[in-house]
Amino acid sequence: MVNNKPNIKYLFKPRSVAIIGASQSKNKIGYQIVENIKCSKYPGKVYPINPKGGKVLGFKIYKSMREINGNVDLACIAIPAKYTFEAVKTCAEKNVKFLIIITSGFSEIGNIEEERKIVNYAHIHGMQVLGPNIFGIYSSMAPINASFGPSEVISGNVALITQSGAIGVAMFGKTKSENIGLSTVISVGNKSDIDEADLLEYLILHKETKVILMYIEGIKHGDKLVSVLKKTTVKKPVIVIKSGSSKRGALAAASHTGSLAGADEIFSDIMEQCGVLRAESIEEALIWCKFLSNTPTPRGENAIIITNGGGIGVMAADACEKYGVNLYDDINILKKSFSNVVPEFGSLKNPIDLTGPATLSDYENALNIAIKKRDIHSIICLGCETAGFEVEKFPKLIDKIYSKNKSTKPMIFSFLGGIGIEKSISDLRHQGIPIFSDVYSAVSCFGAMYFNYHNLKSQEIIEKNSDEVNIDIKVINDIVKNVLKENRQFLLSHEASAVMKATEMQMPQSYISRNINEAVKYANKIGYPVVMKIVSKDIIHKSDAGGVALDLENENEVLDAYQAIMHNCRRYKPDVKITGVEIAEMIPKGTETIVGARRDKSFGPIVMFGLGGIYVEVMKDVSFRAVPITKREAMSMIKEIKSYPLLLGVRGEGRKDINSIIDTIIRLSKVILECDSISDIEVNPLVVYEENKGVKAVDARILLSKE
Amino acid sequence: MVNNKPNIKYLFKPRSVAIIGASQSKNKIGYQIVENIKCSKYPGKVYPINPKGGKVLGFKIYKSMREINGNVDLACIAIPAKYTFEAVKTCAEKNVKFLIIITSGFSEIGNIEEERKIVNYAHIHGMQVLGPNIFGIYSSMAPINASFGPSEVISGNVALITQSGAIGVAMFGKTKSENIGLSTVISVGNKSDIDEADLLEYLILHKETKVILMYIEGIKHGDKLVSVLKKTTVKKPVIVIKSGSSKRGALAAASHTGSLAGADEIFSDIMEQCGVLRAESIEEALIWCKFLSNTPTPRGENAIIITNGGGIGVMAADACEKYGVNLYDDINILKKSFSNVVPEFGSLKNPIDLTGPATLSDYENALNIAIKKRDIHSIICLGCETAGFEVEKFPKLIDKIYSKNKSTKPMIFSFLGGIGIEKSISDLRHQGIPIFSDVYSAVSCFGAMYFNYHNLKSQEIIEKNSDEVNIDIKVINDIVKNVLKENRQFLLSHEASAVMKATEMQMPQSYISRNINEAVKYANKIGYPVVMKIVSKDIIHKSDAGGVALDLENENEVLDAYQAIMHNCRRYKPDVKITGVEIAEMIPKGTETIVGARRDKSFGPIVMFGLGGIYVEVMKDVSFRAVPITKREAMSMIKEIKSYPLLLGVRGEGRKDINSIIDTIIRLSKVILECDSISDIEVNPLVVYEENKGVKAVDARILLSKE
Repeated sequence: MVNNKPNIKYLFKPRSVAIIGASQSKNKIGYQIVENIKCSKYPGKVYPINPKGGKVLGFKIYKSMREINGNVDLACIAIPAKYTFEAVKTCAEKNVKFLIIITSGFSEIGNIEEERKIVNYAHIHGMQVLGPNIFGIYSSMAPINASFGPSEVISGNVALITQSGAIGVAMFGKTKSENIGLSTVISVGNKSDIDEADLLEYLILHKETKVILMYIEGIKHGDKLVSVLKKTTVKKPVIVIKSGSSKRGALAAASHTGSLAGADEIFSDIMEQCGVLRAESIEEALIWCKFLSNTPTPRGENAIIITNGGGIGVMAADACEKYGVNLYDDINILKKSFSNVVPEFGSLKNPIDLTGPATLSDYENALNIAIKKRDIHSIICLGCETAGFEVEKFPKLIDKIYSKNKSTKPMIFSFLGGIGIEKSISDLRHQGIPIFSDVYSAVSCFGAMYFNYHNLKSQEIIEKNSDEVNIDIKVINDIVKNVLKENRQFLLSHEASAVMKATEMQMPQSYISRNINEAVKYANKIGYPVVMKIVSKDIIHKSDAGGVALDLENENEVLDAYQAIMHNCRRYKPDVKITGVEIAEMIPKGTETIVGARRDKSFGPIVMFGLGGIYVEVMKDVSFRAVPITKREAMSMIKEIKSYPLLLGVRGEGRKDINSIIDTIIRLSKVILECDSISDIEVNPLVVYEENKGVKAVDARILLSKE
Repeated sequence: MVNNKPNIKYLFKPRSVAIIGASQSKNKIGYQIVENIKCSKYPGKVYPINPKGGKVLGFKIYKSMREINGNVDLACIAIPAKYTFEAVKTCAEKNVKFLIIITSGFSEIGNIEEERKIVNYAHIHGMQVLGPNIFGIYSSMAPINASFGPSEVISGNVALITQSGAIGVAMFGKTKSENIGLSTVISVGNKSDIDEADLLEYLILHKETKVILMYIEGIKHGDKLVSVLKKTTVKKPVIVIKSGSSKRGALAAASHTGSLAGADEIFSDIMEQCGVLRAESIEEALIWCKFLSNTPTPRGENAIIITNGGGIGVMAADACEKYGVNLYDDINILKKSFSNVVPEFGSLKNPIDLTGPATLSDYENALNIAIKKRDIHSIICLGCETAGFEVEKFPKLIDKIYSKNKSTKPMIFSFLGGIGIEKSISDLRHQGIPIFSDVYSAVSCFGAMYFNYHNLKSQEIIEKNSDEVNIDIKVINDIVKNVLKENRQFLLSHEASAVMKATEMQMPQSYISRNINEAVKYANKIGYPVVMKIVSKDIIHKSDAGGVALDLENENEVLDAYQAIMHNCRRYKPDVKITGVEIAEMIPKGTETIVGARRDKSFGPIVMFGLGGIYVEVMKDVSFRAVPITKREAMSMIKEIKSYPLLLGVRGEGRKDINSIIDTIIRLSKVILECDSISDIEVNPLVVYEENKGVKAVDARILLSKE
């Protein structure tokens, strides 16, 4: 751990920088970094280091760190891996705060020891490490471009954090051609020390940054990331690209619960939980970044489509449904507002169809009405190049309308047509106006904006602290301890039951009887019908051994069943050691669900929910969330599954007791969060009854960590 | 109907053309059409018509059709709707073959009569009508651009058929900026006479056309379209864009079967059945058109990814899974082939990762290996702009490799980077090379190509004629006739049973007993257990009336039940008229499915399949096909549902009798096809047993058309 962590602001605004491995030959990384620092007009002190000495790009090359007078905030290291540790030592002498280790050849090729050694040394000496295996950092605050990425950077309000060097450099380059302004670019590489979560923590209050874009390949400390992401997305939009959604790329999931769905489904669900926008492609991510970085949060849900063509309007409506954009539909207000600008054969329903012959002034009038109208919160303006469309004049109108209103009401444009239209779109886009030839690209921006809007809204709803559930952690830990002592990694049925009891879950009543009299006593206590099951470490498959009796309706049947079970089990396994016979409530039919909690490799503790049986196994209809989880989040994970309508009641059945499911999810999440030794709990089935009639956790399977 | 249809080739290659409503003023459609005809260097005779006379663009304006010497093949009519019919009359005098009615104001605004009158008149006089409400036609064969669309057209091999005028003109224009060559553009508008199917019929053998793109808003004669599309897609790819996939756009479905899923699901399923590619957006459609029009059909399934970055390679693999592109994975052959060009830290698994420092000559070597290898059938070449990437030189390499091999092996490129890369991509694309900055766009082209490949492959499998099923249509028609006589639109249970019997479906044995002795006789004949149900026109809800008895195990129980049913029903409704009591086999449990057939507004007869109960009602897990249907198509519709694994057997159950489901689907499809009066049949549930154990059509609901 870091004893005396440096202030992270010096990573973004260093007063001095050393480039260890600076070079005079143009195609070396050690040259390119110096060149980029120079290009970025960095105002601080620059110390290129190379034992050969000399000059590079007008800077004196120092032979070693020791030659420098005074301290250095940032050291970029671009020398072979085997010399890196020695260089790090010299950095400590100069009170370096941050080490940017460009060099590769560490943990990414299995060289974990060396990497660990460097990080430990750094921490002891008050330094933190970015990398290794990265291309560097750009920060508009300094400004400094201490990377071997592109030299030409547009300063702006998008922060880019990337795990991949190759994609990172290329995206970094592409921001320039897309005219996207950057506040910072940080390559995290092997994340030996500083990771995405550390950077986000800083960027939350970074006033230069309005939108954060992350390219992620794998996650190390997912729980930390989740907690920071939740805090970040209520301040500014976060967009993530993660490759590996295909089977070919996805990891084989470890436990049963995990195997229900690939790791990618977990990632997607948890990002949504955190309010993070997941982009499928780099193109989509960059489009969203640019749009969100230039657009205010809408004041409400109602979008309007203004078009000169019915077909393109319908396509936009399709896209709105796909991307979750709500179309305003108060037909009376629409009629009243737009009847003057829409001709007889046009449409006053949303999409507002100005029809083919619409002139630019018709567009202008319609747009101005939409801009003025308080109930309309965002505008999608579309058009086709019809016979009379004034191609030459339209860029000016768009520019005028957009520039005037961009800070008050979100707007997006899409026009379809020939070379003239395409040229205008390209020019307007370069000016920063969100205009596209493809309707879906345009509307996807609104989709991103409204995802963010809804995330903010949902955070505003103050909810009771859902941590109030009572769980007797001590009891659970004691049970677990005993199991571990026996070198087992799974809990026996009665142990699992005891754990469930300690979580105060709604379970079928059950007792273990040691003799026939106890059996009758308990059965009477529970009330009929009851079920009976053998309890023995020697018998795993109870039914096969004849150790189970169901639907026993009275004392006589219990007496008979007890004797039959004993007889059967002794015949099944003559040397069997019998602990007793479990007498349990025979639980009535209900809707079978599964609730699981486990320790995920990437995200740490997570919970899972789905409808039982076929729904989970065949339809893969499950949802995931990272723990801790609020009631609202638990509700959203229940609503998310496709079979959710079954819980609302179909075919004349009543609504199910969804609150009790939420309670179960929260209790399980508390167990997995607080009991480190438990790796996996699955309640299957959790039988759900009608509203206010509760649930029954019929069976629980609990696994322990291997350590 | 057309008495003497003109030869359609004169629509595409007219020898002479008249423009009725030609104008001298530049912003009139009647001027633009003449201008476009001139621009297109049309070699035939051009007759502008306007009562004012004069000249336009060097052509003499004729005062009327009658002034023209000789015949006219094509007449473009661009005068107000109210004068159109008179103009059509003058066309008949000049033996016009095709009327291109640009004019709007007909059926699209409810003026159906006038439109019908024109078409009838045209047919009687040996003419056919394109439109009305269209922007015209372009044909590279003539060449002629008789439209008010863009003047500059690139001649090529893509045919565009569009229903929307606005989107059509705009897409027509966009082909130029995307450098897509066109063989023909046809605006079909109101489709009063010529529709998509007629045009496709011609384009199947149109050697100038390699790819067909259609923009559809609504379908009139879907059955005709389906049959032509099936023939077309085995000759050339067909891409369709159809807006209205959202609820807001979709029509409320009429019958129960229809309400299971929106009309859009039916459209999508049937397009897939026909081998038609459905593009979501115009952009996607145009990208696919351009790619497919320049690319050979691959020789096989195996695609390879060559990359210089792991991350971008994984993204491409994700995209391959999304778009159904198979990645070659014979690791031994990959190792043997590529080990010389991949460095130690690269990957020899597909994606082949040449790693960041890869030079252009590494790329060239790897590509040449992939090109030579017979087992590799298509190539996805990717890259990120890394530090050493030779941006200036890469366009030349791509051009060289692509030009040399484009006709033998499909290739697609995607590069990510800064302005230099973007510029090269734009230039190379303009040259016709399929290169994209976005990996997903690139791979989507391969997805389209392989969709087409699989469609061709599946057509090669010769299958037995599945029309061999025996159905006694006469019996069915007689039953239906009797029902209609009674002014009913639904069949009673025993009538539906009789229809099902005539289709030779596997049904539970059942008889109607008129008295208690018959009841016992039939029960003995069937074998126990049996079920009994009241048969009476006066009792709809049999259970409510106490008219149902289940699980009767012997003669005594049948006797008791008979008396109880009679008693209950008479008490329920004292004046009840009882036809008898149905005695039926009590059918064993199995997997419940639903098979339906109905007459769809757009497509005519269609069939539906899904798993019963919740799967259909809540999960909307159903599939549709147009009728007639082959066994292979029936199989594909069964496989398509998400719950299909249930039919393969889960949790230790055996595979279900899928062949019997196929048989049921085909029988129902035959009924809906041959019995015009039936509008809707639903077998629900069709209980399916294990393989070779058949199915039971437990209940059938049959509705008749109102006509």
